[in-house]
Amino acid sequence: MLSPLPASVLIDPRTGEMTGRTRRYEKRYSDLGGLFLDEAAFVATAREQGDEIAYQVDEFRPSDRPGDLIFGTSTLYPGQIGDEFIFTRGHIHAVGDRPEIYLCQSGHGVMLMELADGSTRAEEMRPNSLVYVGPHWIHRSVNVGDTPLVTLFCYPADAGQDYDIIARAGGMRDLIVVDGAGGWKQVPNPNYRPRAAIPGAD
Amino acid sequence: MLSPLPASVLIDPRTGEMTGRTRRYEKRYSDLGGLFLDEAAFVATAREQGDEIAYQVDEFRPSDRPGDLIFGTSTLYPGQIGDEFIFTRGHIHAVGDRPEIYLCQSGHGVMLMELADGSTRAEEMRPNSLVYVGPHWIHRSVNVGDTPLVTLFCYPADAGQDYDIIARAGGMRDLIVVDGAGGWKQVPNPNYRPRAAIPGAD
Repeated sequence: MLSPLPASVLIDPRTGEMTGRTRRYEKRYSDLGGLFLDEAAFVATAREQGDEIAYQVDEFRPSDRPGDLIFGTSTLYPGQIGDEFIFTRGHIHAVGDRPEIYLCQSGHGVMLMELADGSTRAEEMRPNSLVYVGPHWIHRSVNVGDTPLVTLFCYPADAGQDYDIIARAGGMRDLIVVDGAGGWKQVPNPNYRPRAAIPGAD
Repeated sequence: MLSPLPASVLIDPRTGEMTGRTRRYEKRYSDLGGLFLDEAAFVATAREQGDEIAYQVDEFRPSDRPGDLIFGTSTLYPGQIGDEFIFTRGHIHAVGDRPEIYLCQSGHGVMLMELADGSTRAEEMRPNSLVYVGPHWIHRSVNVGDTPLVTLFCYPADAGQDYDIIARAGGMRDLIVVDGAGGWKQVPNPNYRPRAAIPGAD
């Protein structure tokens, strides 16, 4: 197999647009059913904005080879579903011990992380803050601002993603919700089922 | 072994200062002997500025475990030795197929890359440009501007560095030198010895 060649790309920190990407994918509101606590609010939003992009990812994937790196940008547009701030589906790496870094380029966000045992961490993201998501941490970006949350990510090329781990537990243990004007807080998710209590749990 | 925990750091894009670093190392002019073509110019500079920092690296190293990630900032102060713009020593990864990414935070630079066979690439770096250094590419940052060149780097934690590969070939194949006011150009290095001609070459 030929080795990937060097490459140079340009990132727009406001829009997340990345030149030279090898892939872009988009998630629309209509793709996010079942993820938010307030299902009625979600249905109403999806009826009005179902075709709108909730977030998009520009990715540069030189290979899937162990030891290589995949990087790209994630752009999560602002929004709320009921009291919840909009978020990405979230994932754990299929190779569970693979970490990931996220450098905030613009916007105001929270990186919400949890372990399978329910331990939880929320790290605020502002421009120039970088979050290291340690091995085995489920993670999801939340936009708590009113502009796009743009992050640069990088992870080991053999990491893979498991996007279902969150749904299998009824969501993440905590929710990130509105707290007064311009604020956010972390509150328990009433639908969360501790994984130890789930047959065949993660 | 315990898994590294999540962490959040803040990067100053102008100075390269990174909170939460696990290590900082500095290279002074007096550490850079033998690297520049114009030895007399180097000696004169080192006599006057030997104690000054040429570049420094703030690093976050959660572990050296395969599959983990190391990241940090590199800050290369502006300077010239003769006609050559100042550069970092440069390296290839000890595990040769490990890549690296560099995101330019501020300044104006060139990422100079070459393969053991002498193939060469030079990618200009301006704020928000990101260079992917492919597997097996020797690489060095060059500051062609008049302000610090600050980059964020990330590489696989098991990559390691071989800093001698460049010296063993008499330097990199090409030099990055002054070209008029504010410009740079890439010219052949007269001291370069093709590696195929070196007994026990890389």
